[in-house]
Amino acid sequence: MTSERAGWLAVVGLGPGDPTLCTPAVVDVLTQATDWVGYDGYLTLAAGIVEPSDHHELHRTDNREEADRARHAIALALAGKRVAVISSGDPGVFAMAAAVMEQIDAIPPSRLDVSIHPGVSAAHVVAARAGAPLGHDFAVISLSDNLKPWSVIERRLDAAAAADLAIALYNPRSRARPDQFGRAVEVLRTHRVGDTPVVLGRDVGRPGEAVTIVTIAELAEHDVQETVDMRTVIIVGSSQTRAIDGADGRRWVYTPRSYPD
Amino acid sequence: MTSERAGWLAVVGLGPGDPTLCTPAVVDVLTQATDWVGYDGYLTLAAGIVEPSDHHELHRTDNREEADRARHAIALALAGKRVAVISSGDPGVFAMAAAVMEQIDAIPPSRLDVSIHPGVSAAHVVAARAGAPLGHDFAVISLSDNLKPWSVIERRLDAAAAADLAIALYNPRSRARPDQFGRAVEVLRTHRVGDTPVVLGRDVGRPGEAVTIVTIAELAEHDVQETVDMRTVIIVGSSQTRAIDGADGRRWVYTPRSYPD
Repeated sequence: MTSERAGWLAVVGLGPGDPTLCTPAVVDVLTQATDWVGYDGYLTLAAGIVEPSDHHELHRTDNREEADRARHAIALALAGKRVAVISSGDPGVFAMAAAVMEQIDAIPPSRLDVSIHPGVSAAHVVAARAGAPLGHDFAVISLSDNLKPWSVIERRLDAAAAADLAIALYNPRSRARPDQFGRAVEVLRTHRVGDTPVVLGRDVGRPGEAVTIVTIAELAEHDVQETVDMRTVIIVGSSQTRAIDGADGRRWVYTPRSYPD
Repeated sequence: MTSERAGWLAVVGLGPGDPTLCTPAVVDVLTQATDWVGYDGYLTLAAGIVEPSDHHELHRTDNREEADRARHAIALALAGKRVAVISSGDPGVFAMAAAVMEQIDAIPPSRLDVSIHPGVSAAHVVAARAGAPLGHDFAVISLSDNLKPWSVIERRLDAAAAADLAIALYNPRSRARPDQFGRAVEVLRTHRVGDTPVVLGRDVGRPGEAVTIVTIAELAEHDVQETVDMRTVIIVGSSQTRAIDGADGRRWVYTPRSYPD
C-alpha cells in the first residue's frame, strides 16, 4: 500500500454515456485516475468514453452499495490513489456526490482532496430530445422509496403539480414496486387535464435510445406503464406544456417561457 | 441569399463557459455552423470555446430579444444556412430551446431541420462546486417576473419549500427589481430554520467565479442580498441539507440521499 500525498478523489458525471456528451474535464479525470470506482454498468459506459489502460484499476460494484463504495473510494484516495468515482448523468442528482459527502460527514478524514465534476443530467438530455419541456420552472423527483417514505413522494408530487411545475421523474418504476408508479400518475392527474404531454425517455444518450411522447391520460394505461422501468426518465408537462408537430412529422413538446396572468 | 436544402438549426448549450465543461457535440455544432446566433455575452463565451473562422457569421443580439432571435435563426436555416443558436448552461432551462419551439409553434415552417444539444446546467455546476446540495429531490425556479406574474413565483416558492424540496433559484435579483428577492427569501424562510445552508454561485465556471455559503438567516440580510444579481444562481437547502467542514478547511453543503420517516 502506497502512502503518497498525491491521492485524490474526483466524483464525475459521464452524462448519458454517449462520448460526445461527456465533458473534457471528466475525460481528463478518467485519464489521470489510477482507480475507477462505480456501479458496474457505469464503469462500462466510462470504458466506452476513455479506454482503460494498464494503469487503471477498475472497482465494479452493485448498484445499491453507494455507502460502501464511497468509503472504499475515500480509503483508496487516502492511500495515495487517484480515484474517479463514476456516476452517469450529473453526479449531484440522485448519485454519488451525496454518497461521498455523507461519508465525509460521518468520519471526517484528516486530509482528502475532493472535487466534483458535473455532467449533463439525464433530465436535460431527455428534454433536449423532445424539445423544451423543462423550459419553465420545474421539479426533479425520484420515485424510489428505498431511501424515503412513499408518503413523502406523494406529498411532493402533489405539491409540485399543484404549483403547476413541469416534473422530471427519476427511477419511476421497478420490478420490486410495479404498482406505486400508477399511484404517482393518479396524484399527478388530479392536477392536469388528460391531454397534458408526457415524455418517456429510455436509455437516452445510449444505444437503443427511445423517446416516446404520450398524454397523461395514456400514462394511466396499464400497457403504457409496462414500458416504464428504472432506465426511463419521465417528464410530465405543466398546464402550459404543448405538443406540436414539426415540419418533418416529428412531434415536439415544449413549455413556453411565459406564464399567463 | 442561398437556398440550398442543407440548412439546419441547432440549439446548443455551452455549459457555464469553461471550455472543459462544454460537450464535444456542441463543439462540433459550433465548428460546422455557418452562423452563430445569440446574446452577445454568450457568443463571446462560444468564441472562447471554438475560435470563429472566416466562414462563421456572428449575429449578436441583446439579452431580451429571444423571440426575434429565434425567428431570425429559423429564417437563416430556411435560407440554407447552418445555424447554431447559442445559450449558456443547458438550452432547455430558461433559454433558447423554448424560444425556438414557440416560433415553430406560431408559424410552422414547411421544412426545418432542428436539433437541440444539451449542456451542463448552471444549477449543477454550482451544486458541484459546493458539494451535493441537489442530491435529493429539488425544484428549479426563475425569480424573473418578466414573463410570469410575481404571484405565481411566490406560490411556487411556497409550495416547493413546503414540500421540503431543495430549490435552485435562477435570475434571482436585477436592478429593475431589487426588492422582490427579499420577499422571495421571506417566503422560503417561513418553511426553513435559520441555519439552513444556502449556496450563492456567481459566474461559476467563468473567470471571476465566486461560491459563497451562507445560512438562510444571513440571506435575509441587506448586505448579503446586495451581492446577489442576475449572474448568481442560488441553491437553498431543504430541511435535511447540511453544511460540513472538509479536511482542508473547505466548507461543503450536501443533501443526504435518504429522507427520515
